[in-house]
Amino acid sequence: MRASRFFISTLKDAPSDAEIVSHQLMMRAGMIKRLGSGIYTYMPMGLRVIRKVEAIVREEMNQAAAIELLMPLVQPAELWQETGRWDKMGAELMRVKDRHGREYAIQPTSEEVITDVVRTEIKSYRQLPLNFYHIQTKFRDERRPRFGLMRGREFTMKDAYSFDRDLAGMQASYKVMFDAYTRIFTRFGLKFRAVAADNGAIGGSGSHEFHVIAHTGEDALVYCPTSDYAANMEAAEALALTGERPAATEELSKAATPDTVKCETVAALLGIDLARTVKTIALTAETEKDGKITKQHFMLLLRGDHELNEIKVGKVAGLANHRFTTEEELLEVYGSIPGYLGPIGTQLPVTVVADRTVDKMSDFVCGANDAGFHYTGANWGRDLPEAAIVADLRNVVAGDASPDGKGVLAIERGIEVGHVFQLGTAYSESMKATFLDENGKPAPLQMGCYGIGITRILGAAIEQNFDDKGIIWPASIAPFEVVLCPMGMDRSELVKEQTEQLYAALQGAGVDVILDDRGQRPGAMFADWELIGVPHRVVIGERGLKEGKLEYQGRRDTEATGVAPSDIVAFIQAKMAQ
Amino acid sequence: MRASRFFISTLKDAPSDAEIVSHQLMMRAGMIKRLGSGIYTYMPMGLRVIRKVEAIVREEMNQAAAIELLMPLVQPAELWQETGRWDKMGAELMRVKDRHGREYAIQPTSEEVITDVVRTEIKSYRQLPLNFYHIQTKFRDERRPRFGLMRGREFTMKDAYSFDRDLAGMQASYKVMFDAYTRIFTRFGLKFRAVAADNGAIGGSGSHEFHVIAHTGEDALVYCPTSDYAANMEAAEALALTGERPAATEELSKAATPDTVKCETVAALLGIDLARTVKTIALTAETEKDGKITKQHFMLLLRGDHELNEIKVGKVAGLANHRFTTEEELLEVYGSIPGYLGPIGTQLPVTVVADRTVDKMSDFVCGANDAGFHYTGANWGRDLPEAAIVADLRNVVAGDASPDGKGVLAIERGIEVGHVFQLGTAYSESMKATFLDENGKPAPLQMGCYGIGITRILGAAIEQNFDDKGIIWPASIAPFEVVLCPMGMDRSELVKEQTEQLYAALQGAGVDVILDDRGQRPGAMFADWELIGVPHRVVIGERGLKEGKLEYQGRRDTEATGVAPSDIVAFIQAKMAQ
Repeated sequence: MRASRFFISTLKDAPSDAEIVSHQLMMRAGMIKRLGSGIYTYMPMGLRVIRKVEAIVREEMNQAAAIELLMPLVQPAELWQETGRWDKMGAELMRVKDRHGREYAIQPTSEEVITDVVRTEIKSYRQLPLNFYHIQTKFRDERRPRFGLMRGREFTMKDAYSFDRDLAGMQASYKVMFDAYTRIFTRFGLKFRAVAADNGAIGGSGSHEFHVIAHTGEDALVYCPTSDYAANMEAAEALALTGERPAATEELSKAATPDTVKCETVAALLGIDLARTVKTIALTAETEKDGKITKQHFMLLLRGDHELNEIKVGKVAGLANHRFTTEEELLEVYGSIPGYLGPIGTQLPVTVVADRTVDKMSDFVCGANDAGFHYTGANWGRDLPEAAIVADLRNVVAGDASPDGKGVLAIERGIEVGHVFQLGTAYSESMKATFLDENGKPAPLQMGCYGIGITRILGAAIEQNFDDKGIIWPASIAPFEVVLCPMGMDRSELVKEQTEQLYAALQGAGVDVILDDRGQRPGAMFADWELIGVPHRVVIGERGLKEGKLEYQGRRDTEATGVAPSDIVAFIQAKMAQ
Repeated sequence: MRASRFFISTLKDAPSDAEIVSHQLMMRAGMIKRLGSGIYTYMPMGLRVIRKVEAIVREEMNQAAAIELLMPLVQPAELWQETGRWDKMGAELMRVKDRHGREYAIQPTSEEVITDVVRTEIKSYRQLPLNFYHIQTKFRDERRPRFGLMRGREFTMKDAYSFDRDLAGMQASYKVMFDAYTRIFTRFGLKFRAVAADNGAIGGSGSHEFHVIAHTGEDALVYCPTSDYAANMEAAEALALTGERPAATEELSKAATPDTVKCETVAALLGIDLARTVKTIALTAETEKDGKITKQHFMLLLRGDHELNEIKVGKVAGLANHRFTTEEELLEVYGSIPGYLGPIGTQLPVTVVADRTVDKMSDFVCGANDAGFHYTGANWGRDLPEAAIVADLRNVVAGDASPDGKGVLAIERGIEVGHVFQLGTAYSESMKATFLDENGKPAPLQMGCYGIGITRILGAAIEQNFDDKGIIWPASIAPFEVVLCPMGMDRSELVKEQTEQLYAALQGAGVDVILDDRGQRPGAMFADWELIGVPHRVVIGERGLKEGKLEYQGRRDTEATGVAPSDIVAFIQAKMAQ
């Protein structure tokens, strides 16, 4: 490609609404252009990156025997009503009516449509397994679109759907996709991690997220550096502490803690370690029976320095649906105001749920259910009954034991770019997608679904790879692999001739090269390509040529390397192979 | 590709709602699957054709220096309001509201968005010319979607937009696109014709449609076999007959024609040629001034065997906006009922508009403005004044003189698959998309737009190329170029070995080949591939192999040709090069 036949448009400054570095750099590098809230035009430079991402995804999906088709963007409401998602999806599902008043969804994903396709196409177990995918525009009406392509409303996603005759088959298909994803993210040249994820309300037996590692990531990833264990924060199990609960050494005592409602300030006031305090969270679950609403109150206990994990709370018996107890209810049930709640003296029907760590504590500090007072020296069994329920309620922290017993946990931040999911029969049962098994009996299809956020990859790759000059693309998804920067091509026949020769040689070698023939000054030209992030640059100047040299500089290199014109193609190929 | 890793799904019968052959065959060949009215899933077999069409379009667009980007599907209403199209487009424009109540269009085309992009990106004449295109899903909420991909609601279109500094530049860009389109349709291997089209309400200075020739086409194409002249029916000019109007030979006479309101029946009743009758069409144009509506009545005269051309009527002075005169008005103005209207005796303020052909007629028959009577022997100048306006009002017919004076016109039918359009400054002026010219003065961008209906190409190609067995794809857009049909691959080692060898050899030669390893019976297997329309087939059977032969058969061949295994690759390559 010659720059004069391409469209390059860079900016000195990012627009003020670009909050994160990938958004800022994509705007400055002319890769995207905002059309509306969460809606972007992919400019020629950005589209090249998207196409390279898509090509790698497509190759690996085909290699994994997935079959490409293309499902519509505008999908009839009736299908979404069959699975109940028309109601469940809420405002994120963009809905539209046609001229006859019929309702449609603009697809955020295509489980319903693919299930509709296969329920008429798949008749026999002989046709299985099958895996269909498409790469298509999606729309999700986010409440607060932000971060450019990271949380846009219109975006491109690859979504695949596998169909199997039984659970074992589905798990095998899942494994094939998991491995394909591993190859895809490896080929992208990105540091990534696959982590076990919670299955959420959809059920099913397993799911993994693929994250690009970046300090700026929204998600916390938990992993064990000395084993294979990895999970997202929602799903990472906090084991109980090993060993027995220490014996009590202190007497229960009521300490005045006026205006001191947080564990941090209580610990500071009492001069003790935060890890000796227990915080109390009051939740209420309501159930309706014969028109009568029954409330059940729960008191959750967490060590002062730990964080509550909402997903884990939802799995405690009785807490699938819960809310915070209101201040009015707190007064009525516990006789206390928030900040001074505690488990001592509470009675049925309150259920005390202790986090595994709290269950192993002795001589702890907790609220006294008396405004302005905390207990110190509290001990299970002596000052309060053993907790009715002991459960994993908290987020793990770095240094916790790994659930696989093979080391301690570490935490890093990631950006979710892929998700593989064992769906089971949730969709096939609600949509009656069955096949005839070997005995001629109808059975529901076992499904899996597998997504990659194509456009999000761009943002994630940049969050992981940038410096103060701009983007640093991995070569496999860079808009161009090599840029040629001739100095004064219009003035020097030598420069012109050598540049054209090198351009042709690189193209002949299958290198994706751009020749910057715009005639810009060197400083502006170099700044553009550093901002855009092309990984390899060759400067062709008359002085260098007279010394028998071209100047090669990798995007991460701090200095240029002189290379003889006769060696440069091989030199670049060697760099690209690294 | 191995068929066992692909998805092939054929049907014996087409669904009853498939009215035309391309729709029927695409459904039967498993290329598309209906999701809703005018909305289709492109199944794997159909998607392969779409991708080949897209690849050819993309290559030729890039070759013509057009630059690919990707504009959003969901576009803010504000942009469409700037050009007035938000109101003008009516119910065809699919409108949607987001969670905040903001309005958007689902793009049917992207003039507004690209003009918005360039008005901030193009600052100087030095950046021009520029041509941007994208290949993207479109939605048009057709009142009556039908004919499968021919008139669907969701479809794929390539739309390009050129930007120039002046009219000459825009015309040059238009020529480049016209030539690119010619190459594209030539590469598709389709018989096509570019015809001049009417510019419609949008104005501008020129436009051409590209049509795939097919008997079943919706549009009539006019061309001169002995010259370059070609236009669609709307735009084809009907010249005035050469020579003088013949002198009158008959007396004016009133003939009783009870219950005889059509020219055809009048001619039959009177025993004369239909070409001696004149039909009268009464139109009324209303203009409002100072709150007062003024009506102007027009009487249009057309030879009995000719058809009115609505586009031409709209170009007659005073008739840009018109409607049919109501029966009440006919009685009031002409004292006549429909079917017996005629120009004799009419007075101002009625304007008589004669078609050029009628202006040259003498001794003609027309309505007498008296129910149950027609005049015969009517003559201009003698029985009624010369027409106030003489204009081209009719569709041309085969045998008419070509407007370029180089022969006579012929008519064939076509399917519109492309349109190139000189837009001028209509969009750039309403959206204030200007650039600084050489004198530093702002000037509006000169625009052109260029569309190709990607998915429609599939339907059009089939309408042109099919037989009673199924589709006959041109090789360049066939889902596969060659199919290998082994006979009893599971039983014969020889067949298996030869098949795998040939499969590898063809793949190595860059041929897009599918190996049918499904193990079907020969009859069913052949029927599938004839229906799907793969252009080249090779049958590998044990008996043939023992005789040193493979059986080659082109999709249009009536018999197979024996070819030695050692010659088959070269043989196929020679066939493909034809």
